[in-house]
Amino acid sequence: MASTPGQVIKCKAAVAWEAGKSLVIEEVEVAPPQAMEVRVKILFTSLCHTDVFFWEAKGQTPVFPRILGHEAAGIVESVGEGVTDLQPGDHVLPVFTGECKECDHCKSEESNMCSLLRIDPDRGVMIGDGKSRFSINGKPIYHFLGTSTFSEYTVVHVGCLAKINPLAPLETVCVLSCGISTGFGATVNVAKPKKGSSVAVFGLGAVGLAAAEGARVSGASRIIGVDLNSDRFEQAKKFGVTEFVNPKDHDRPVQEVIAEMTGGGVDRSVECTGNINAMISAFECVHDGWGVAVLVGVPPKDAVFKTSPVNFLCERTLKGTFYGNYKPRTDIPCLVEKYMNKEMELEKFITHEVPFSEINKAFDLMVSGEGLRCLIRMEN
Amino acid sequence: MASTPGQVIKCKAAVAWEAGKSLVIEEVEVAPPQAMEVRVKILFTSLCHTDVFFWEAKGQTPVFPRILGHEAAGIVESVGEGVTDLQPGDHVLPVFTGECKECDHCKSEESNMCSLLRIDPDRGVMIGDGKSRFSINGKPIYHFLGTSTFSEYTVVHVGCLAKINPLAPLETVCVLSCGISTGFGATVNVAKPKKGSSVAVFGLGAVGLAAAEGARVSGASRIIGVDLNSDRFEQAKKFGVTEFVNPKDHDRPVQEVIAEMTGGGVDRSVECTGNINAMISAFECVHDGWGVAVLVGVPPKDAVFKTSPVNFLCERTLKGTFYGNYKPRTDIPCLVEKYMNKEMELEKFITHEVPFSEINKAFDLMVSGEGLRCLIRMEN
Ligand SMILES: NC(=O)c1ccc[n+]([C@@H]2O[C@H](COP(=O)([O-])OP(=O)(O)OC[C@H]3O[C@@H](n4cnc5c(N)ncnc54)[C@H](O)[C@@H]3O)[C@@H](O)[C@H]2O)c1
Ligand SMILES: NC(=O)c1ccc[n+]([C@@H]2O[C@H](COP(=O)([O-])OP(=O)(O)OC[C@H]3O[C@@H](n4cnc5c(N)ncnc54)[C@H](O)[C@@H]3O)[C@@H](O)[C@H]2O)c1
Ligand SMILES: [Zn+2]
Ligand SMILES: [Zn+2]
Ligand SMILES: [Zn+2]
Ligand SMILES: [Zn+2]
Repeated sequence: MASTPGQVIKCKAAVAWEAGKSLVIEEVEVAPPQAMEVRVKILFTSLCHTDVFFWEAKGQTPVFPRILGHEAAGIVESVGEGVTDLQPGDHVLPVFTGECKECDHCKSEESNMCSLLRIDPDRGVMIGDGKSRFSINGKPIYHFLGTSTFSEYTVVHVGCLAKINPLAPLETVCVLSCGISTGFGATVNVAKPKKGSSVAVFGLGAVGLAAAEGARVSGASRIIGVDLNSDRFEQAKKFGVTEFVNPKDHDRPVQEVIAEMTGGGVDRSVECTGNINAMISAFECVHDGWGVAVLVGVPPKDAVFKTSPVNFLCERTLKGTFYGNYKPRTDIPCLVEKYMNKEMELEKFITHEVPFSEINKAFDLMVSGEGLRCLIRMEN
Repeated sequence: MASTPGQVIKCKAAVAWEAGKSLVIEEVEVAPPQAMEVRVKILFTSLCHTDVFFWEAKGQTPVFPRILGHEAAGIVESVGEGVTDLQPGDHVLPVFTGECKECDHCKSEESNMCSLLRIDPDRGVMIGDGKSRFSINGKPIYHFLGTSTFSEYTVVHVGCLAKINPLAPLETVCVLSCGISTGFGATVNVAKPKKGSSVAVFGLGAVGLAAAEGARVSGASRIIGVDLNSDRFEQAKKFGVTEFVNPKDHDRPVQEVIAEMTGGGVDRSVECTGNINAMISAFECVHDGWGVAVLVGVPPKDAVFKTSPVNFLCERTLKGTFYGNYKPRTDIPCLVEKYMNKEMELEKFITHEVPFSEINKAFDLMVSGEGLRCLIRMEN
């Protein structure tokens, strides 16, 4: 690696040329990192629903050709001007939302929505100079969420990289880079269920099951899993889910079913589907007086949340969160330690693994709702 | 009064015979209190927008003939079977939402939505036997919010009466029975602004100005008052409101105006209008990352709250509250003490006063948006 810093690197990347079409492994050129940027060698990446969502690009601004991917783990190859926190060889998790440590959000205890580095799915370029670092024959290939981890090498703003314990196994902590932190944090940082409470989780993919895990760790006594795909239910038991509801099994709104099961509603709910109806149900199924619902799923651009204002007046609370309200640079190294100290299980979220050359299989698995995270191994 | 307990009392009450028609002072018969009920001699009552709303009965279930009124102060005349907490002569504030002290809500620290005695505007009878205690020539006249204070005597469930310091001036603490506690509590108990924060208050009637007062007491540095009626602005200065916005003065949504004034949005907002557009604006004008909006106004039955779910995902919180989350029997006596200790001003909320015989003037004042609370003196 000694000769790569400052040079353009030629490597393999999975390029999404068009919305919904299979990715193509191409040789791309990755420019050196500019000021405040870091070039990272990706060792592992996994597929999150957010990748599929922007790949399908239904009702979104299509940005193609693009290198998707945002849940990953890697090693710093080189750093650009002004980067002092990281050096070549550091182990890092790239995160789709950054932490500049200087804006009002970074200084607030409550927010992780960094003004400089917050998620922006429509942006396909680096914030420094508005250009892409990826190209094929001089033609730019766009970035995704500032991470673009479906590439052997990628360039990321230093504020979007969490430096982690070098002893942590990258093939496992990879999933903390998005889904698991998102779901777990949505419960423990935002919904904050009390011991003995009831929690409903909508969507039993990796994000939802991490939310369920957060509920279990918080001492929830009932964890009600809601999913349209009944195949999810068997698996969900390993994550502490105690009861299941498939909305398709009922001829009335699932919020009514849950209210009946729980004597008026659950204490907390966490929505991890991206479906607007599930969002509304997740809100309306919480108990009046004290119920708190948390939205996590990424909705279509034109989705409208509709409910009677009386549902709020009856003392329900509705919140939303990105990345489980974790600040990536400050908090993620601690979550990695939690895993290292066996206070958090990650292995059970990784149900499949493919070599980079078979990345499209990971998409097939997610679209068909099979398994949780599919790990993509960059090196054979 | 010695001879009235156990007897039907004939007294004057202002009867709403039809939606939107002037009240008529009639002689009514008030039956003795039944089990767990208390008959109260009302000395002062004031008009809250909620009375006007159910009197107009637009889009509501009309319940007529009815005795309206729910913001009041009085003295216990007699008590029914099983009432041990109150006795004749006690000074009380009737409250539209009760506290049974036994249900899940009453036992929860977070809720004041008592399962037994929560607000139910469609109910016109006592919960004990489903009958009215008011009649004219044997024909029942319906109750309102369990209080019906536009009568010289009324019958109220013991759980809806706060027993207060007998030294407190009833003509002043009267307003704690609804509006002022509601607005003040919405800010201090629910929105909880931090010192130095910015707060927007939508609707500058008594409820909204009490919310502003709560913001002032909490140390908010900017209190932005929003009202369609610019006449409200002069008055609002007395309540700590520092800036004003009339949505009519702008050709874009008021949430955008507020976001621009505050570099992205206010830290907290409290909606005290009952208007669905104001509710949506109040939510959308809070800062992403940490903003909290609280709904207080009573909306029309068919109102729908609509917003993009992304507004939640960006880490905004939306809540609602009845009666400022105060538990009437537990908390209101303490608020009365706060007034007695000069930690809370109430006089400035009472801008008008009329004798009972002129109660319709109070309605005219509120409908035309003049003044804040109009005190109605039952005895001349
Ligand atoms: N806010 C954030 O920071 C953040 C981060 C990561 C992922 N996400 C979003 O979280 C969501 C979940 O991600 P994932 O990777 O776990 O996806 P996934 O596809 O693995 O799981 C989603 C599950 O939701 C179920 N589902 C879909 N519609 C439903 C409905 N109406 N009712 C009940 N269940 C329904 C599906 O059957 C599936 O099992 C996605 O919308 C993703 O974009 C958000
Ligand atoms: N949740 C509760 O426990 C509770 C208790 C009491 C009152 N309320 C409700 O609170 C609200 C306020 O009560 P009040 O007695 O102060 O009423 P009020 O009529 O004295 O004041 C309401 C103010 O809101 C303003 N307004 C109306 N629509 C507006 C809009 N779209 N934008 C900005 N301002 C607007 C009016 O001009 C008026 O000044 C009412 O809806 C009432 O029913 C709720
Ligand atoms: Zn993700
Ligand atoms: Zn920042
Ligand atoms: Zn009221
Ligand atoms: Zn109760």
